[in-house]
Formats: sequence, structure tokens, C-alpha cells
Amino acid sequence: MSVGTLIKKMAVDAKAASRTLRQIGSPRKDHALALMAENLIKGQDEIIHENRKDLMKAEESGLSAAFIDRLTLSENVLQSMAQGLRDVIALPDPVGQVTGMWRRPNGLLVGRMRIPLGVIGFIYESRPNVTSDAAALCLKSGNAVILRGGSEAMHSNLILERLFREALAESGLPPETLQVVPTTDREAVYALLSLDDYVDLIIPRGGESLIRFVAENSKVPVLKHYKGVCHVYVDESADLHMASEICFNAKVQRPGVCNAMETLLVHEHVAGDFLPAILERLQEAGVEIRGCERTVAIAPEVTRAEASDWPEEFLDLILSVKIVSTMDEATDHIEKYGSNHTEAIVTNDYNRARLFLEQVDSSVVLVNASTRFNDGNQLGLGAEIGISTSKLHAFGPMGLEELTTTKFIVYGNGQIRT
Amino acid sequence: MSVGTLIKKMAVDAKAASRTLRQIGSPRKDHALALMAENLIKGQDEIIHENRKDLMKAEESGLSAAFIDRLTLSENVLQSMAQGLRDVIALPDPVGQVTGMWRRPNGLLVGRMRIPLGVIGFIYESRPNVTSDAAALCLKSGNAVILRGGSEAMHSNLILERLFREALAESGLPPETLQVVPTTDREAVYALLSLDDYVDLIIPRGGESLIRFVAENSKVPVLKHYKGVCHVYVDESADLHMASEICFNAKVQRPGVCNAMETLLVHEHVAGDFLPAILERLQEAGVEIRGCERTVAIAPEVTRAEASDWPEEFLDLILSVKIVSTMDEATDHIEKYGSNHTEAIVTNDYNRARLFLEQVDSSVVLVNASTRFNDGNQLGLGAEIGISTSKLHAFGPMGLEELTTTKFIVYGNGQIRT
Repeated sequence: MSVGTLIKKMAVDAKAASRTLRQIGSPRKDHALALMAENLIKGQDEIIHENRKDLMKAEESGLSAAFIDRLTLSENVLQSMAQGLRDVIALPDPVGQVTGMWRRPNGLLVGRMRIPLGVIGFIYESRPNVTSDAAALCLKSGNAVILRGGSEAMHSNLILERLFREALAESGLPPETLQVVPTTDREAVYALLSLDDYVDLIIPRGGESLIRFVAENSKVPVLKHYKGVCHVYVDESADLHMASEICFNAKVQRPGVCNAMETLLVHEHVAGDFLPAILERLQEAGVEIRGCERTVAIAPEVTRAEASDWPEEFLDLILSVKIVSTMDEATDHIEKYGSNHTEAIVTNDYNRARLFLEQVDSSVVLVNASTRFNDGNQLGLGAEIGISTSKLHAFGPMGLEELTTTKFIVYGNGQIRT
Repeated sequence: MSVGTLIKKMAVDAKAASRTLRQIGSPRKDHALALMAENLIKGQDEIIHENRKDLMKAEESGLSAAFIDRLTLSENVLQSMAQGLRDVIALPDPVGQVTGMWRRPNGLLVGRMRIPLGVIGFIYESRPNVTSDAAALCLKSGNAVILRGGSEAMHSNLILERLFREALAESGLPPETLQVVPTTDREAVYALLSLDDYVDLIIPRGGESLIRFVAENSKVPVLKHYKGVCHVYVDESADLHMASEICFNAKVQRPGVCNAMETLLVHEHVAGDFLPAILERLQEAGVEIRGCERTVAIAPEVTRAEASDWPEEFLDLILSVKIVSTMDEATDHIEKYGSNHTEAIVTNDYNRARLFLEQVDSSVVLVNASTRFNDGNQLGLGAEIGISTSKLHAFGPMGLEELTTTKFIVYGNGQIRT
């Protein structure tokens, strides 16, 4: 079978499975999730055995220790993956919720009911625990999913698929609910992106080049997550102790993630009081500072920022710093260089807080809190399958609800149009 | 200036305008809408003069009388376009609405605030009154819009643009809120579809080939409205008088639109009682019937349906009719041949009604009412910019809310992640 034929067959099977899935209530889906968690534990020897094949290949290919660490499925990792599946059981099922209902003058009762999207294509890199998370969220929201993981995790993903599908079958759910693309051939991705009659949504997760490739080649709608160039603006009215805590947390707690701060903007009236101490604290934590001209005037040991630093997602212990004369200058800078991801203001001024929340066009805008809170779990959505930076359908962290849509349901008693 | 450079400049200007627009309250937007309505009346001589150029060209090109009728801007049409603008003033402004807010255990107050999408590209055919409707809905929802109308309406669209932009300027709004693409060059469409850094959404409205072209060539997200192959299923428990009224209305009231019935499905237990009378009534109204084998056995004068009739959107006084043995056979038929647009059941059986509403995967599913109610106005959304048959972002009629998205707003008092 050619790759194109294979992927088409997977998509047709997924669509058929999705028709069954959308009519299945929470108890059966939760039962399947519980069995999937069980199978992760019962099957751990097999999983670790298959995972070792991936690890050996990764070592032979000379991949970094950090990469190999993320790829490794230990007993502990499997325990936490199983716990992740059980956590999804505890989340409310969005399917069938009626999000509003109203009566029309002619007596029609019109409502909106949440339904699954149908078939989701999920394209991601390396970590096999993402396979488990994505499977759980798609199942709970009533969607069939086609998973295309990184080639480095192929053996691990295929054994997870087998164990999960056994759980699905045991719960009476169609095994085609969950399918792993069994080839690393790039043709498979092209084929998946072309099947808009069968696949309802593509979610790419990984580096910017993967996401751009998917967005540019897909006929199926794509929910993108590009880079996070996140800003914290410290206003002249800020509590400077709070500002220091927030900036330190936003930069240092986990610098390699998309919701970490990349640029600090400071109002000129507090720059002299605030910057020397926070820059010293950050530098002690290993952060390299790249400052604007005025920053360098206050802290001469700081490197001068290049123009290319302002739009840069460092994903590392590097921070660009700019002193601004007004809040408008800060929001202009964010508009110009930001990525609509996450922006925070630290202020005690009521009107500045209000204006910043309204003016800044990012998926999450915070007052007096760390940018690190842009996360489905932290914001109360339960779990997340990604963070969308495109505005359509979902903007920001995507939880179970974002894997559904609504249809209109209409109760009449003989109404016709005149 | 090349076409590509021109469109890029329009998109950059639109994005700049959208930044201003998203911070403007309802009174100013409503004021602009009122002035736009006024300018349609004050400028009617100019508009009719320009429209006549389009009409002359259409006549020379030998376009149909129906086409020329839809293209014509008379005093009456302008009055009703002005009324359409005033109707949008009366609709609630979705921008700034907070659709939910909750407190996290750490004290963070998290909410979702409605915001405009940004820049919308609207690609449509012929009728210049769509220019006015689309301009009004985009403005009210805080979006800048780039309009690419049919080449046959170019003079009409350009004079509308000038008069509307005068109204925008008089209200202190950026004139780049509304831009008409001033060329019929196909390059302009390609260019618009490639500008995903500036344009947030493309809405195509017109024939299936236009929509497929846009969907297949766009890097910008597209909300598609494909065909409507709408079904009415008359259950064995139906009130047959009601069924007759609904079927007649769904087929005959306006056969050329997407929410008209194309296929009638009848339960075998009532086919003998129901079909002869309704088919006669439909035929008297000029409807051509194409029936399944069992239908032809009951009504021998009916043409036998071909396999190609079932997935067909006739958009005309033609109806395919099929007798089914069970409701499952009806929903299987809908699943196979339907277009996820609009489906109705006529029944007095509570459980059948409930099952049909849940099982049928269409943007609007009705019990005991005509399919013709799939319309933003009729369902209570106010006005509509189109009907989406893709599930992402909006499924069904799109009103003002569907031209917005939500961002997360977070109120903290110093929270950091641990």
C-alpha cells in the first residue's frame, strides 16, 4: 500500500470511528481512559523494551543528553503518564452541553449544543508522553485522533498505540479512535494535510519550522502555536518588590518554555530604583542581559541590545531590557515586536491596569502576575493540548472545550418561513 | 505599483486601522454606521450613476436578467441597504464582553474577554448590497475589512467605498477600516490569501468553485460555506399535515438558497398516506420529483432518481425522495450524502426527536420546523455574514459574535509559579 493510500485509509477509518464516538456518553469514555492508564502500568516492561530501541537509535545518532532524557520512558514517567490519563477522567465532559437557549417570537426554541470536532490530526515532535496526553484529551472530547509523532519515538508510540487500542476495544469503543502513523515518510504528513473531507483539524506542536510547514501546506484548518515573545512591563506605580518577584519568576523559573519572559520594559521613573537590583539578581541566576541605550547608562556592565534582539524568542537565560518614557511606548513596543502570546503589567494604578488589559492584543494579558501562568492547567481549563496564537476558534491555551464546536438545535411545533 | 505591493499595502493599512478600531466603543461605531446610512441616501444619484456603468457592461456581456436584477441599485434597494446599516446599530456590541470569570485557588481572577479578530478579507461575487452588509458587521465587531467583490460590480463597490469612508472619517475612525480591492486581477486574490501576518480571517461567499479555490490557496484561516444538501425526514409518528406544510415550505418558498430542502426521506409506514398528496402538491408548484424505487412504486409518474441525485444541491425546483425502513436508515443516508448544513425531522415521538437532534452532525438540526430557518436573523443572531459548514470557530450562521474571539484576562496581586 502506498503511503498516500495508507493515510487515506486511516482517515476514513477515523471518520467512521468519530461517528460512533460522538454518541458515546462520559462513563464509557472514562472507563476506556481508566483501562488505558492500567495498561500503561501492566505493560510497562514491554513499553520500556520498545522505548529502549528508540533510545539506542538516538544515542547512535548522537542526539543530545537533554533530548534523550525527554525521550526516556522510565517507570516513574509511565506512572505520571497514567496519572495524567486519570486526571482527564476527572474533567467535565464538554460534549452535549447546551451553552445557551432562547425563544424566538415565532415560538422556536433555539439552542447551541457542544459537539466533538470529529477527526483531529496531531503532528508533534519527540516526547512520547505527548502521545498519551493527546490521546486522552481527544477521547474525552469525543474526537478520533491520528497521531504523527517524531520519528525518534516511533517504537515507543507504536507500543503505546497497541496498549491503548486494547483498552478501547475492551471498553467497546472503536480502536480506530486512536491511530499512530506507522511511517516516518514525509509523504504521510502531506497526505494527512490534504484530507479535508475526513480530517477536521490539524494541531502541530513543535518548533517554528514544523508549524510553518504545516500551516503552509494544509488544506485542513490548522491551530497554530508560533513563538512566545512575552513581555513584562513594570509601570512607574509598581510595587517594586512584587515586580522583582514576578520578573525573576517569569524569566528564570523555566526559561525554555513559550510563556517565559523575553523582554522587560521599565518605566523611566522607576528604572533607576528598580533595574540595578533586579539585573543583579537575574545575572546571579545566570541570565545574560541585553539592554537598550538607557539601560546600559544605568548598568554599564550590560551588553547593548541589537535590533534583532527585540523580536527574538530566546528560550534561554537571556533577557532584553528597555526603558520606556510612557506606557504607550511600552504597548507600542509590544505591538511591534510581540507575538500575541502573553504580556503582563506590574502596576498599582487602576487605570493603567485597565488600559493595559484592554489594549494589549495577546492571548493572555495579566496584571500583577507572572507570564508563566499562560497554561491550561494554571488558568483552570484542566489540561491543555497546546496554546493557540492564531485568533480563530481558540486564542490561548486549548483545553477540552476547544476540541469541540457547537451546533444549533431547534425545537419547533410546525413553524415555517413566510 | 504591482498588484502584490498594492494588496500588501492595503493589508498593512488595515492592520494599523484594526489597532485603533479595537479600542473604540460602541457609540462611535454606531455614529459611523448612521452616517454611512445617511450617505447611501444623500449619495443615491452618484451611486445609481456608477451602478449604471456596471449594468451596461453586464448587458453587453450578455449576463442573465436575473443576474442584472441582483446587480441593480435602485432607490428602493438603497433604502433597504440603509435600513440594514441601521439594524446593525441596534445589535449589541460583542467587543469587551466578558464571557466568564473564575477564581483560581492561588487567588488569580481569570476571565475571557471578547475582542475583534483584527483584519477580515471578504471575497464574494456580484451583489453590491453584500458590500454594505459586510462593511457594517465588520465595523460593529471592531474589525477592519478588505472587500474583494465581483468584477461585475466594481464601479458600484468603489462608489460605496468612497461614501462609506467619508462617513468613517467624519466619525473620526480610520478610513482604512474599509477598503475595496480596486482591481479584478486574480493576482490580487492570491496576494490577499498569502498575507497571514496581516489578515486574520478570509470569508469567501459565492459558488462552490470560488470557495474551493480560496480554501485550497489560502495561508490565512478560511471560514468556508460549501453547499447545502438539506434533508427533511418525515417519521412514522409525524403529524402529516404539519409534515406537508414543512416540506412544501422547505422546498418551494425559495428553492435557490442553501437552506432549501433537496432530499425528502419518508418512513415506510407513512409513505403510502403521505407521499401521493405532498408529491402532487409539490408538482403543482412546479417541482420535479426524482424518487427511489419504492417511491416510484407508489407514484408511478415520478422519474427514477439516479445515484448522482442524492449528493446533489439542486438549488432549483427539483427534489429527490427516498422511502426508508427505519430512522437509522434516514440518518445513515444523511451521513453519507448530506453536507453538514441543515437537517429536520418531523415527528411526534419524543425519543426519535431527541435521538435525531443528537445524532445528526449538521450546523442546524431542527424538530418540527422548516430547514429555511438556518439563517442568522431567523435564529436570533441579528444579522449574518455567512453560514459556516466547517466546524472550526463557527458552525452554522455567523453573526457579530462569530467575528470576534476571546482573550484571557488575569487579575493578580503578585502571583508567581512555583
